[in-house]
Amino acid sequence: MILALDAMGGDHGPAETCRGAAAACDSYKDLELILVGKEGEIRPLIEPLPEGVRKRLSVVHAEELIGMDEHPTRAMRKKRQSSLRLAMEMVRSKEAEGCVSAGNTGAIVAGGVLVAGRIRGIDRPAFGVALPTLSKYTFLLDVGATVRSKSLNLYQFAHMGNVYSKKILGVAEPKVALLSNGSEEIKGDEVISAARELLLGSSLNYTGYVEGDDIPYSRADVVVCDGFSGNVILKFAEGLMTAVASILKEEMGQRILPKMGMVFMIPMMKDLWSRFNYERHGGTPLLGVNGVVVKAHGRSKAPAIASALSVARNFALQKGVERIQEELE
Amino acid sequence: MILALDAMGGDHGPAETCRGAAAACDSYKDLELILVGKEGEIRPLIEPLPEGVRKRLSVVHAEELIGMDEHPTRAMRKKRQSSLRLAMEMVRSKEAEGCVSAGNTGAIVAGGVLVAGRIRGIDRPAFGVALPTLSKYTFLLDVGATVRSKSLNLYQFAHMGNVYSKKILGVAEPKVALLSNGSEEIKGDEVISAARELLLGSSLNYTGYVEGDDIPYSRADVVVCDGFSGNVILKFAEGLMTAVASILKEEMGQRILPKMGMVFMIPMMKDLWSRFNYERHGGTPLLGVNGVVVKAHGRSKAPAIASALSVARNFALQKGVERIQEELE
Repeated sequence: MILALDAMGGDHGPAETCRGAAAACDSYKDLELILVGKEGEIRPLIEPLPEGVRKRLSVVHAEELIGMDEHPTRAMRKKRQSSLRLAMEMVRSKEAEGCVSAGNTGAIVAGGVLVAGRIRGIDRPAFGVALPTLSKYTFLLDVGATVRSKSLNLYQFAHMGNVYSKKILGVAEPKVALLSNGSEEIKGDEVISAARELLLGSSLNYTGYVEGDDIPYSRADVVVCDGFSGNVILKFAEGLMTAVASILKEEMGQRILPKMGMVFMIPMMKDLWSRFNYERHGGTPLLGVNGVVVKAHGRSKAPAIASALSVARNFALQKGVERIQEELE
Repeated sequence: MILALDAMGGDHGPAETCRGAAAACDSYKDLELILVGKEGEIRPLIEPLPEGVRKRLSVVHAEELIGMDEHPTRAMRKKRQSSLRLAMEMVRSKEAEGCVSAGNTGAIVAGGVLVAGRIRGIDRPAFGVALPTLSKYTFLLDVGATVRSKSLNLYQFAHMGNVYSKKILGVAEPKVALLSNGSEEIKGDEVISAARELLLGSSLNYTGYVEGDDIPYSRADVVVCDGFSGNVILKFAEGLMTAVASILKEEMGQRILPKMGMVFMIPMMKDLWSRFNYERHGGTPLLGVNGVVVKAHGRSKAPAIASALSVARNFALQKGVERIQEELE
């Protein structure tokens, strides 16, 4: 399994992407990675790695890089020698079975459409994320590939989410729902309401509207919304859990008794934290394009990069792109 | 301070609303409540209360009630003898300084507009909620009075939120922000982008776009969004914190060591939980109408009813409605 990694993407640059690459190679013995970026910066970082990992890392030099604030489509069109564009070209040419980047989100979407191309039957791609919930995972999409959607886009997202839930997350007959502001039929806006009509007439196991609190309670396996809502929910979840964790930490420093208690609590809190640490669950696949394209969080450190690589590897192994194509035919 | 309480509203009916009324009277010695609803059901519930509380509770009989699933505007127009409508009429006639209901949300909004009337300069009212965050409160609006908004509505919400933050929450110069899917100017949809232009030209301390994770981190004092997004965020927060609490509880039962640790942890966890228990922070004022109208969560038990009554009392004491009128003139 060969994957391309945009080594320059993300807020922390090659230092973290290369460490993440090494961690992923350590976990998956079948994994080979092409690190795309400034060779002069990457080489010294992989030089000291153990032989078993290093021999599975190759470097492809990229002269340019796309900044986090650049105009996505323009950057993707013009910067043909950028690390992100080159990583995507490798997916198109089948040199790599997938690519991962923690870079400019809009450029990843633009690149997915321009370089990999859309799957026939999909008008717009969507980012999906497997959100940890009370008992399992809920697959939420779109979490930000586009801002607002038409009903037909939501309908297509539902089909893609259904495939992902079945084939990648192993849910036998996924319950597919639309996110709304209430469970009653009269809720939602015109777009959501028309998507509901489309889904009622589809072959999917459509179970109706869900509300915000239904997500952590795993009341649906696939929750479909526009990119604005998905983005806000995902980021709010990250922020809330980080805030709660930092309050716990601060309180620990202030009170002696809970400090003593904390010794016993640590394993439990760690479990909980790693479960709901949305930021670490790096890796949101761009569904609807003709290749495996996975975005990692811009703030990704090494573990999140490794996690995104694992998402890409799994998606490629399960032939996710082909499964979506089949579903749509 | 006389407030009217829709004693029939909410999932638990008079049993919880009356207990909540008693709790509020216990906390605030200046409070007198008019319980509006089926006299035959209410009387037996307040009969056993201590004299000091009971004498501050009066009952006004209402023959009808508005169900949770009824069409809001239709129900509000037709059921003139419903507990909700009568409670609102008391606000209009100044028999009460405000009213509280845990009933049909749409009917509360419709009633606010029909019975109390809109404040001049406000096209649509908004529900606001003071969300507990890392260091203080962030006032989020609209959390569901309407579904989608125009730019001008968002602009008006910002002004109302600014007044609430200043006068009720005591923030000297509130930082006002728009919720978006990224902090850069190019983010947001057309509606949000046009609202941004309006706010840049306003007298408010407008600080730009905030993202989902900025809310728990208190990066703005007032966060403005449409009712769909606000509703989804608020409910997701409720669900997430309840899910986390139930995982903690379950884990406690399964592991002996954390159980021991928990003894010391209890005060700390209780603090945290009561801080982030969004469901208990009952009481979302309907801003933009000519009177104090406060909605409690449909699932409200007595403490949430008491909390909503306290929100209404405080809003009335601080002359919130008049302050909003002044701001808009």
